[in-house]
Amino acid sequence: MIKVLAVNAGSSTLKWKLFEMPGADVIAKGQIERIGFQNARLSIVTKTNKFCEELVIKNHQQAVDKLLVILTEYQVVDRLDEIKGVGHRFVNGADCFASSVIIDDDVLEKMESLIEFAPLHNPANIMAIKAFRRELPQALSVAVFDTGFHQTIPEENTVYAIPYEYYQKFHVQKFGAHGISYRYVLQRFLKVAGYKRAKTNIIILHLGSGASICAIRSGKSFDTSMGFSPVSGIAMQTRSGDVDPSMLIYLENKLGVDSKEVLKMLNNKSGILGISGVSSDMREIMEIRKDNERADLALRIFVNRIVKYIGAYAAELEKVDALVFTGGIGENIPYVRKLICDKLKIFGIKIDDNLNEVKAKETRISAPDSKSDIWTIPTNEELMIAEDVEKLYSEIRATKALH
Amino acid sequence: MIKVLAVNAGSSTLKWKLFEMPGADVIAKGQIERIGFQNARLSIVTKTNKFCEELVIKNHQQAVDKLLVILTEYQVVDRLDEIKGVGHRFVNGADCFASSVIIDDDVLEKMESLIEFAPLHNPANIMAIKAFRRELPQALSVAVFDTGFHQTIPEENTVYAIPYEYYQKFHVQKFGAHGISYRYVLQRFLKVAGYKRAKTNIIILHLGSGASICAIRSGKSFDTSMGFSPVSGIAMQTRSGDVDPSMLIYLENKLGVDSKEVLKMLNNKSGILGISGVSSDMREIMEIRKDNERADLALRIFVNRIVKYIGAYAAELEKVDALVFTGGIGENIPYVRKLICDKLKIFGIKIDDNLNEVKAKETRISAPDSKSDIWTIPTNEELMIAEDVEKLYSEIRATKALH
Repeated sequence: MIKVLAVNAGSSTLKWKLFEMPGADVIAKGQIERIGFQNARLSIVTKTNKFCEELVIKNHQQAVDKLLVILTEYQVVDRLDEIKGVGHRFVNGADCFASSVIIDDDVLEKMESLIEFAPLHNPANIMAIKAFRRELPQALSVAVFDTGFHQTIPEENTVYAIPYEYYQKFHVQKFGAHGISYRYVLQRFLKVAGYKRAKTNIIILHLGSGASICAIRSGKSFDTSMGFSPVSGIAMQTRSGDVDPSMLIYLENKLGVDSKEVLKMLNNKSGILGISGVSSDMREIMEIRKDNERADLALRIFVNRIVKYIGAYAAELEKVDALVFTGGIGENIPYVRKLICDKLKIFGIKIDDNLNEVKAKETRISAPDSKSDIWTIPTNEELMIAEDVEKLYSEIRATKALH
Repeated sequence: MIKVLAVNAGSSTLKWKLFEMPGADVIAKGQIERIGFQNARLSIVTKTNKFCEELVIKNHQQAVDKLLVILTEYQVVDRLDEIKGVGHRFVNGADCFASSVIIDDDVLEKMESLIEFAPLHNPANIMAIKAFRRELPQALSVAVFDTGFHQTIPEENTVYAIPYEYYQKFHVQKFGAHGISYRYVLQRFLKVAGYKRAKTNIIILHLGSGASICAIRSGKSFDTSMGFSPVSGIAMQTRSGDVDPSMLIYLENKLGVDSKEVLKMLNNKSGILGISGVSSDMREIMEIRKDNERADLALRIFVNRIVKYIGAYAAELEKVDALVFTGGIGENIPYVRKLICDKLKIFGIKIDDNLNEVKAKETRISAPDSKSDIWTIPTNEELMIAEDVEKLYSEIRATKALH
């Protein structure tokens, strides 16, 4: 048994979960939010207690320092060297990393060269990685990539119809995201639904605050709705999803801003929030939509884009064994699942209204005569990360034992 | 019987067809290309002859002047006042014009206010309209909009998931294009296939140098692949179709250019040309693709994007009576039609390889057991324009006769 820390550093957050592996026992979890602001917020949940404090955290280095202090302070571990591995979610590994890797100096250098592919996330990831490597030198440091799972997508789905040299020289292509989630959900689906990986075609809907869809063909990622960046694809909480590129220049002129500002707007002020004008939270939208036309439109657009991507992916896959819902919305809002599935009549897909009344459960929710199964499978990206760390840790131990 | 001129002014072209209406007899047709260049090229085809000359044409005013000179010079008409109506294709009427209108000063002013929605095309359109109104003051001047047909698209398909105020204030929305072609092809389909408009759900594929797809639900445009501008949707000869908006800013930095340059690249150097690096012409691509990987990739991407849009639209429509191919590629390249239809197995769509061997013909090409029919119907945008002009001309005559 080893203790493994799964770390997810966002642009202003540091989320973590400490596992005992194998077995996936969660010893403690927590997060530091609003990093870089005056009122950062630290919370930690152990098996017996919850703690929360407000403090000043300047950057991810400080956040890691603070986290390591509280792990012993709150007696989550007796000594930090009990932690044998730290796994880091890395948002965009571009086309350089197909699977999880042990982070050494060369890998770190490679990762630093990829900052421009995820300018908001990758620098935070890298700062956190460096901090953990310094503070926990005995622990195996592992990078787990959100893009890795999508390296199997064939060229006709990764290459954009732009001058090919930009693909060759500058790596402008579809990278996708949520790969850690897709990998976990696929693995669970194969197990609980009893499918053979190589024969499995499914469509996974990761509907969280960021949201995307993945077409899995013969057990591998075949297409996904996010592209060169996470802004494209379906409409999200605050991201636009697909738009017409001409609109960017038109809005630059109309608003008197540059293209960076327009892109910020597409990332932070669009999606459900942009359409409704009141909330990015699907639960709130559901509550107010009867009396609020724009909230209702936001919901309809959210569903519409998803239905169209499912149609597109069903055509590509030719046979769809199952639709699988995951992510905050996908796991917990039955009515959204129903709205989506009710629009898939042409595929003979039928949801069972009673079975669909579940939340956060690993279960089938399709009617018996549905042509494709429908499942809901809660995702667990942290566990996927911890499993990768444990696997690499075991491999190293085995190799060392041989010599 | 009246003579009607159908005019299609592009950014550097002026195409025209002179009809005798009703009856759609083509008296003559022609075009002036490379307007604004030193070596503009004028060609004209009458019932008995063909002429061609190179000359200097500075702008669309000069092009119209020259055209009116040659119409009598080549004895297409004896006197210009035989032309009773001129119909102008207007690319982007934004959300202002749902159907064709007689151009008076108010309409012209409104059209001038829409230049920013099609900065390359609309100014040429307007200059041609003004020239014809001045030179043929007796003729009825009619605007026929490529966007008009799409005014029936419901809000969830026209509104982008961006701040709603940009839709309200700045009309950032899906406008679509090729509406004149879709209207014509739908009208022919209803007639030759024997369907009732209100009960007809079809997907029309307008695959020309510009290319788009339209989902027709209950006889009306319900969704279309082009958006705020004609650059989005499927991959085209030189246009990219859908891309990730983040890529624009990334390429601005990499290439050291501004967003306008990137947009130009997406319009003029992308699509089939961009991927293959050698040709924008699908016929050439077909010839070389066996020995040219990138040409082959261009074809696969062209087909892939179309298949995905068909899947998306089939989901939206719930029932698809027919797929209808039109436009240069759609009418004339059977193998591309076959590649597309062969990827639609999930919908039970089957092409008949023998029937599919047609070019430029109005005919069904699906196998008897295909779940949706497949048709090819040559488009005729000029005739659609002439019909609109004749209709408005007859209405005016009838109104005058009443008074």
